[in-house]
Amino acid sequence: MKIGFVGIGPMGLGMARRLLDAGHMVSVHNRTEARARPVVDAGARWSATPADAARDAELVFSMLADDDAVETMTLGPDGIAAGLAAGAAHVSSSTISVALSGRLAAAHGTRGQGYLSATVLGRPPAAAAGELFVVVAGDLALQQRATPALEAMGQRIFRVGDDPTRANLVKLSLNFLIFSTIEQMSEIFALNDKAGLPPAELLEILTGSFFNAPVHRNYGRLIVERAFDPPGGPMTLAAKDARLFLEAGNDLAVPLPMGSLIHDRLLAAIARGEGGLDFAALSRRAREDAGLPD
Amino acid sequence: MKIGFVGIGPMGLGMARRLLDAGHMVSVHNRTEARARPVVDAGARWSATPADAARDAELVFSMLADDDAVETMTLGPDGIAAGLAAGAAHVSSSTISVALSGRLAAAHGTRGQGYLSATVLGRPPAAAAGELFVVVAGDLALQQRATPALEAMGQRIFRVGDDPTRANLVKLSLNFLIFSTIEQMSEIFALNDKAGLPPAELLEILTGSFFNAPVHRNYGRLIVERAFDPPGGPMTLAAKDARLFLEAGNDLAVPLPMGSLIHDRLLAAIARGEGGLDFAALSRRAREDAGLPD
Amino acid sequence: MKIGFVGIGPMGLGMARRLLDAGHMVSVHNRTEARARPVVDAGARWSATPADAARDAELVFSMLADDDAVETMTLGPDGIAAGLAAGAAHVSSSTISVALSGRLAAAHGTRGQGYLSATVLGRPPAAAAGELFVVVAGDLALQQRATPALEAMGQRIFRVGDDPTRANLVKLSLNFLIFSTIEQMSEIFALNDKAGLPPAELLEILTGSFFNAPVHRNYGRLIVERAFDPPGGPMTLAAKDARLFLEAGNDLAVPLPMGSLIHDRLLAAIARGEGGLDFAALSRRAREDAGLPD
Amino acid sequence: MKIGFVGIGPMGLGMARRLLDAGHMVSVHNRTEARARPVVDAGARWSATPADAARDAELVFSMLADDDAVETMTLGPDGIAAGLAAGAAHVSSSTISVALSGRLAAAHGTRGQGYLSATVLGRPPAAAAGELFVVVAGDLALQQRATPALEAMGQRIFRVGDDPTRANLVKLSLNFLIFSTIEQMSEIFALNDKAGLPPAELLEILTGSFFNAPVHRNYGRLIVERAFDPPGGPMTLAAKDARLFLEAGNDLAVPLPMGSLIHDRLLAAIARGEGGLDFAALSRRAREDAGLPD
Repeated sequence: MKIGFVGIGPMGLGMARRLLDAGHMVSVHNRTEARARPVVDAGARWSATPADAARDAELVFSMLADDDAVETMTLGPDGIAAGLAAGAAHVSSSTISVALSGRLAAAHGTRGQGYLSATVLGRPPAAAAGELFVVVAGDLALQQRATPALEAMGQRIFRVGDDPTRANLVKLSLNFLIFSTIEQMSEIFALNDKAGLPPAELLEILTGSFFNAPVHRNYGRLIVERAFDPPGGPMTLAAKDARLFLEAGNDLAVPLPMGSLIHDRLLAAIARGEGGLDFAALSRRAREDAGLPD
Repeated sequence: MKIGFVGIGPMGLGMARRLLDAGHMVSVHNRTEARARPVVDAGARWSATPADAARDAELVFSMLADDDAVETMTLGPDGIAAGLAAGAAHVSSSTISVALSGRLAAAHGTRGQGYLSATVLGRPPAAAAGELFVVVAGDLALQQRATPALEAMGQRIFRVGDDPTRANLVKLSLNFLIFSTIEQMSEIFALNDKAGLPPAELLEILTGSFFNAPVHRNYGRLIVERAFDPPGGPMTLAAKDARLFLEAGNDLAVPLPMGSLIHDRLLAAIARGEGGLDFAALSRRAREDAGLPD
Repeated sequence: MKIGFVGIGPMGLGMARRLLDAGHMVSVHNRTEARARPVVDAGARWSATPADAARDAELVFSMLADDDAVETMTLGPDGIAAGLAAGAAHVSSSTISVALSGRLAAAHGTRGQGYLSATVLGRPPAAAAGELFVVVAGDLALQQRATPALEAMGQRIFRVGDDPTRANLVKLSLNFLIFSTIEQMSEIFALNDKAGLPPAELLEILTGSFFNAPVHRNYGRLIVERAFDPPGGPMTLAAKDARLFLEAGNDLAVPLPMGSLIHDRLLAAIARGEGGLDFAALSRRAREDAGLPD
Repeated sequence: MKIGFVGIGPMGLGMARRLLDAGHMVSVHNRTEARARPVVDAGARWSATPADAARDAELVFSMLADDDAVETMTLGPDGIAAGLAAGAAHVSSSTISVALSGRLAAAHGTRGQGYLSATVLGRPPAAAAGELFVVVAGDLALQQRATPALEAMGQRIFRVGDDPTRANLVKLSLNFLIFSTIEQMSEIFALNDKAGLPPAELLEILTGSFFNAPVHRNYGRLIVERAFDPPGGPMTLAAKDARLFLEAGNDLAVPLPMGSLIHDRLLAAIARGEGGLDFAALSRRAREDAGLPD
């Protein structure tokens, strides 16, 4: 299949290479050309603009940092929508707001273009290995056409219906689940630490009993080892995701008190100069509130 | 070993039988004699009082509902402390407050009696199968002496030092982890349900990706199936545990905002007449706040 | 002075009449012409568009429902900015976001037009009596020029510097203070009511001792009398204001946990079908959570 | 009237002197005799024990720091109950738990002694001037008998029925109202300060408009002037009161989310070494979370 790919960051790099490896013809665009070099060296074609990357493609993926980037790269001059043929489709994999996803669907629709949300779970090594989890939503026939591309990237594909915004809502929900699991663990780590039991020992009990999911093991380890710098995912991005989660709740009239708590914690971290650390460092707030040393 | 066992509820029943099956001589007491029948039929000796159950024992376990029951059965007239020989020890497995555990340790100490906290994770079937997780704290030599008994009950033993109250704090912490995981899932289930994605489908995504611990699978299933009655663990006991968790935080000067949120949710459930349901029914609060039907 | 006035709702009506009564020449525009009739009958000139109302004015006030209305009426075709002369100024009195206020300031600035925020506290009767409190921010010389108009409307003018967005932030902050005072009172009313002391009696203690500000007396009375319908200020507008308050916190990296709590309460009210009631009805949430009848 | 008074701290001192000034015969006891000197010099009789102070009295007041002190001074050896004649009454003015108040009522009742709760609002200067607000509950005939004594102390007496615990619940509720008003103001002070508007200027707007109750003026001033040391009321006592407020909610099954937030804030202050400061210093938490300097 001819596929465009816009946004060659750590995640996009792995995803685009998996498409190449699966035999697709891939055109890539990235704001900074140099970062796309490895995938171009691996056989992708460089495109000077998102519109160019989309021009002859059946599908064009985007994997970008935030709403602003996705809106500009899609609807701006020389954006994806300007190059994409009628009947071809944009597959948005970025973690964006439900509201923007709805606007993109509408904007492509008026041009006769298709639109899918195919959000992904996993960090860059999983992207490179094709072991992401993919949550896809949108027109069902289009989902079928995109399946070979999605299977190249993911170890498992979850389908959540024909409204593309649902995949965005699920992604924001899962990110909230990660953040709030960090907060859960941080509160009990602080409490037990102050009583004399080190976090590493408590984590061993968690992961040795009923709390042994990857979310517990991976983030528990980051907290215990204080492995916050360089960040796997920075606090500022987490705060953005928490904000989008709450905005979705606001728009649907669903109160999310635990979501509110997490968002406030993340803002405090940023205010205290920790915006560039890994978001697992939100564990510092519970320690600080307990009067424990960093 | 000669072992006493006070409190033959659903958990105590399995634990006492495991001790019998491992070849120990077991004397049992329960407030209601009839409920101890199965374990007496299996070879335990009936004791009319906690003091009697403790009389000749090297170790006497207690597994009771709450602080009041443990205090009465231990320090009341004909309580464990009245019967236990100097040099013998009380092993407390109930989910009780850190403060009471400290008082019990002191009370036994003044009588030359030993005291261990050996709290347990798992529901009655795990108790019957000897597959509990045991968290034990207290005098290290005493822990060694108790090991054969603990191994009869548990698939794994976690040792958290020589201060017995730590095992109580860990147990309260793990219960909080269960309650707050229910709240986490409840918030995203409500949000996505209102957007059209049923909880069962979202749970499949959780347990099929990074959120596949027993705590997610077991409680996620209860929520999705609305399997709240009869309760595995009633809301009132959960509210009690959440209160003890917050009291521990108060006494150690550790703020626990997520703990506070959970406690408030549990109180609301009780106030609305759901105290007798399984505590997984706290998922109803998020649905109610979102205007979703029961 | 020649003054334009855009937005003749219950508040704008009183404000525009005060300007007329003070001897100013006033041109008015409102989306629905009929609602402007009373002020036209009192001597104002009708303008078919916001641009027309602004055309010859030295100052043009706007008093509208929300960000969308203000943005459209200001920057849309035939908006205020299209009619206002260079050197003249727009005085925005609506409760809008800090972010939009900043954009309006910039947009007017590029046209050589002035911009002030002059937000107001008080309900329609205070507006009609010229007894509003006015919080004004923006260019200091411009504030001086606007003083006669502001004094016609307000019993007192608070000046908060030359950055116009500050007056918006103060207004959102004061509204939060109202909402959270309602929540404060609602929690203690529910608690004491369940213990047998009716809210009316507790309110008398509040207002008879240290809690006797208008915010306590006015909203306490609404709660006690359940005077929620018709609304003085509807729940949906309060939820909007609470959202803008939190957005300001997000943008400045200031966590606002009590603000988050209020926003979640307001969303729950809307989700439960109470969006059209007076926002004092958020007192129902605490009662409901306590298992008390409506 | 012959009146006993137990507890001559800063509040008790003023209250006892007001009783003397009104012509009553007063016997006083205090743990530290020296602190009772001024009131003995003014004509009170010194009693070596609470029982002695109660011996011939018709009424014996207690004004002590916390539950432990009240329980010991009332029910301990040589406590009030040991000296008080049948038919005479104990009037408890301390800020204690609803649960203890209920136990005291029962304990006195079994001895044929009366019991009233007469909690007070106001700081030491108001006590010295007889300008406290008094909230009284308990047997109505007994309230009548106590009226002359209560009127000597208070500018106004609020009667809340025949269940003495209600006066305790009201007192805890009003203290919560003070703490949460501090938090309200602290959040908006932090937010606006970060945007460039100093707290002193915002406070002037509050107290110049709808937020002009003593609770706003007095605590707003303490916050703005950072007048935290020496404390009027220390953080540790406030944390105790907030805990008792939440305990009352727990026992009545009334969730109090704003109460939970306040309690967590107070614990954080204590954990960070601020337990000895005035509780108005809880304003520091919002500043700290916002990244603002102390």
